[in-house]
Order: sequence, then C-alpha cells, then structure tokens
Amino acid sequence: MSDHNDQHNIEQRVTASFNAQGLMTTLGAQLVSVGDGEVHIALPFSIRLSQQHGYMHAGATTSIVDSACGYAALTKAPAGHEVVTVEFKINMLRPAIGERFLAIGRVQNAGKQLSICTGEVLAFKDGASKVIALMQATMMHVAP
Amino acid sequence: MSDHNDQHNIEQRVTASFNAQGLMTTLGAQLVSVGDGEVHIALPFSIRLSQQHGYMHAGATTSIVDSACGYAALTKAPAGHEVVTVEFKINMLRPAIGERFLAIGRVQNAGKQLSICTGEVLAFKDGASKVIALMQATMMHVAP
Amino acid sequence: MSDHNDQHNIEQRVTASFNAQGLMTTLGAQLVSVGDGEVHIALPFSIRLSQQHGYMHAGATTSIVDSACGYAALTKAPAGHEVVTVEFKINMLRPAIGERFLAIGRVQNAGKQLSICTGEVLAFKDGASKVIALMQATMMHVAP
Amino acid sequence: MSDHNDQHNIEQRVTASFNAQGLMTTLGAQLVSVGDGEVHIALPFSIRLSQQHGYMHAGATTSIVDSACGYAALTKAPAGHEVVTVEFKINMLRPAIGERFLAIGRVQNAGKQLSICTGEVLAFKDGASKVIALMQATMMHVAP
Repeated sequence: MSDHNDQHNIEQRVTASFNAQGLMTTLGAQLVSVGDGEVHIALPFSIRLSQQHGYMHAGATTSIVDSACGYAALTKAPAGHEVVTVEFKINMLRPAIGERFLAIGRVQNAGKQLSICTGEVLAFKDGASKVIALMQATMMHVAP
Repeated sequence: MSDHNDQHNIEQRVTASFNAQGLMTTLGAQLVSVGDGEVHIALPFSIRLSQQHGYMHAGATTSIVDSACGYAALTKAPAGHEVVTVEFKINMLRPAIGERFLAIGRVQNAGKQLSICTGEVLAFKDGASKVIALMQATMMHVAP
Repeated sequence: MSDHNDQHNIEQRVTASFNAQGLMTTLGAQLVSVGDGEVHIALPFSIRLSQQHGYMHAGATTSIVDSACGYAALTKAPAGHEVVTVEFKINMLRPAIGERFLAIGRVQNAGKQLSICTGEVLAFKDGASKVIALMQATMMHVAP
Repeated sequence: MSDHNDQHNIEQRVTASFNAQGLMTTLGAQLVSVGDGEVHIALPFSIRLSQQHGYMHAGATTSIVDSACGYAALTKAPAGHEVVTVEFKINMLRPAIGERFLAIGRVQNAGKQLSICTGEVLAFKDGASKVIALMQATMMHVAP
C-alpha cells in the first residue's frame, strides 16, 4: 500500500469483490470507505432485516462487520491473494436499534498467512451513535 | 417441556417469533423442526445470498445458525422469557458450497439466566452432506 | 467510582481478591494497577511456565488477561457484586517471547448483569514491547 | 495414523512435547491418553491453582484444554509439522468445583494448514462428573 497506485488498485479490487457479493446487495449494504487496513460498510435499517421485535437482526449486522473485517484483511494480504474467514466471535452490546448502521473492520496484526482483525458496529439514531457490537476475527490469505 | 401441551406451546411460540423475523423471510429460511433444546432451520442456496465467488456468504449461514441456537435456548428458558444473543463464535470449516443448508442449534447447558449452545451448519450437495461451520454461543434469558 | 473513597475501596477489594487467587501466586503474577474499568497484571517469564519450545505457554498469558478482564469488570459492577467469567475468546498474534508480560483488561460496555471486556497481552523484550494476544470476554455480575 | 507404528510414534511425540511444557509440570497436569484426533489431560485440584473462592481458576482449566486441543491437532497434522494455537473461545458452564478435572480435545476438521477442534473439561466430585467448560479452537500446522 506504499503509493497512490497501490491504494487505488486495492480500492478497485475491494469494490469489485463487494459488488460481486449477492448478500450485500440483498441486505442493501454500501461500501463506504477502503483504507489501509480499515474498511467501512454501511447498512440502512429495513424491516426486511429485522428480528422478532423489529430491531435489526444480529445476522445482518454480523454479515456487514464480517465483510468489513475480511476486506480490511485484503488490503494487507500479499498481492493477488484472496481472503477467507477462518472464524470470528461477536458480542452484541445492546439492541440493534437505529436508522442506519456502520460496520468498521480493522486489521490488528497481518501475518503471512493470517490476519487478525477487530470490528465494531455503530448504530445511528436521532443524530447520535452507539457501539452495538464488537467482533474479533481471524482471516486467512489464500494464494491465487 | 414435560408434556405434550408444553411442547405444542413452545413450537407455536418459536414459529410465531420466527415468522416475525423479517431477515429469515428475506433470506428464504425455513423453520424445519423445534425439539426440546434443539432447533433446525433450513436455507436453500440463492445467488442473492452469495459471497464474491458465488458460494453462500458466511453472513447468511451465520444468521440461520444464530437463530437456531437462540430458539433452542428459548425452548429451555423459563416460561414467558425472551432470549437474546449475548455473543457467539463461529468457525468456517470449508467453503459453503451446496444446494441447501441446514443449521442445527443445540442447548448444551441451560442455567437460570444464560444458556450455552452449540450449532453446526450442514451443506447438502449431490445427495451428500458436510459440516461447513461450527458455532458456540451464549444466550441470555430476558424476563418479560 | 465517583470519588476518592470509592476508588480506594475498589482497589482494596481487587487486591484482596487477587491475593486470594492461588493460581496468580503459583504463576508469579503481580497486580500492577487498578483503574476505573481498566486493570493491569504483570507476569515475569519463567521456564516453569513454558510451552514445549521454551516460550511462555498460552495458558499462562491467558490466565493473567482473564483475571485482568474480570477485575476490570469488578470495578464497574454494582456495589457488593462478584464477577465470574462467562466466556472469552483469545487470539495469539505471535509467539510469547519476552522477559516480562503485561495483561491489560478494559471494560468496553458495563450493563446491569454483564460486562463486555477487551484484553491484550504485551511482551517486553530488550526494551521494546509487542502485542502478543487479544481477548474479547463476557463477565457476569453476581449478586452477593 | 494408519498403522501401529504411526500411532506409537505420535504418542511418543506428544508425550515428549507434553513433558517439555514447564507449565504442565507446574500445574501438576498429566497426559492421560493420545488417540487419533483425541487427547485427554488430567489435572488434580490444588489450592495452588485456585481462584478467589477456592475453586479451580479458569486459567488452569483453560491451560489443559488448550493443550489437549493442540495435541489432538498434532495427531492429525502432516508428518513432522508442529502445531500452534491460533485462537480459542471457551465458555465456563458452571463453577470449577471438583477433586480432579479432565480436559478432552477433539479434532473436528483437519485441513492442510488448520485444524478446528472442540474441547471440554469435566469436573469429578464424589464419584460423579459434570462438564464445566466448552472450547472451540483453531490450530495451525507449522512446517518444520
């Protein structure tokens, strides 16, 4: 990621991959930003994504923060490699109530084969935001 | 859960709650069975739920196994209580390739406030099945 | 934790509890600091705590960061409550090589019944430090 | 692991590695059995390993089940490879009260680079046993 071209290339690559994820379209998720080791994905609330009380389903917020962590890892993976999720753990801190959600994935340590990431999901409501979920994830770099 | 009526009631309650989850309808998930401490949810493959290689997205399989664990916990919670996901951890064992997926949630230990569950997701392809994901989850019982 | 007395009391309580943990003495761990929602525990390297290559065993570093998270939660729990570990997840980022290790536990969200914490373990070697492990933990407040 | 010699070799290798772990000796842990993909490690209770209420510290039970999972993975790793813990998650189901504890690690899926394991810890008290902890772990095979 050492120069402008690299950053441009990785943004293009993440954007193309994100657009190829049928689930992101089905959920209505939007790729917001791609930085070096940090990716943001937004998801507007929809009753189509609710759990039984009408809040956002944990599965929907988990989906976007898993993708945010995976793409954050991709920005740190060796050139040409893909990234797959080995595993993650997520804590739900409070009910997912909001008009809009933002998932942030960050690489904490990038090794040759694995990247360890942390993620969080923010809920925006009435102009304020709260962290509603925390993730810790292991991503594997897969040679082409 | 000690007699026929109880089992009937809990099935009705899980079914009503499942049907109120907008995300399950959006994904196309189906509630398959509700047993005492064990719930099965099926999900046919759809390109609308894919990741970038055309396989099922981890977020979709995670959503159904989270719900399966939550409803399994509900069958063991004190009468009238709700269940919310405190946290879970999931390992993806292999690519989620299949025509149909089945999530199984099982209560391993039901306490007064918390139930600890394990979950697995099976992929069915060409008449054979493989375990593609393993979950370990903590559910909280919430008084009405 | 709103005034000097409260902070003094919680320090005394954490110190007394720490000193009652036989394992901390057996490992040679030291309680370094008790802040509001943040606790530090140190552990000098000893070959008595090694894994098979002579590095610190993951079980030893996990023990101190579990205790650091638990005591961090205790500083946020309702007065008189105890704290027990519901579960945690820990990633080992690199080999635990160092002369001394420091576990930091931090409360990220304190609810009525549960506190969600993150933890990290630093290894100190030749005057430099590296993060060798990351934890995400769920602690339960238990009424007396 | 297809014949008697292989099984004998892996037992010798696990035993030698276990004996080289200073922490296992310090805790008083004993290697009980080494099967194909399943390893048992026992730990008698000692007040030297206690938490503040006099029960076994979660760090001690976690240490033996982490080792049991790691050695289970070693029995499935390519010849000559080592195994390191990438991460694990553990739920404490009930207080660790007992005269003796048994950790069982089992490989659920062995890939080329990673093995996914589950573990449990049993507490034995007055002739009966209870599961007190459940683990789900990711182990990496490291080429020599």
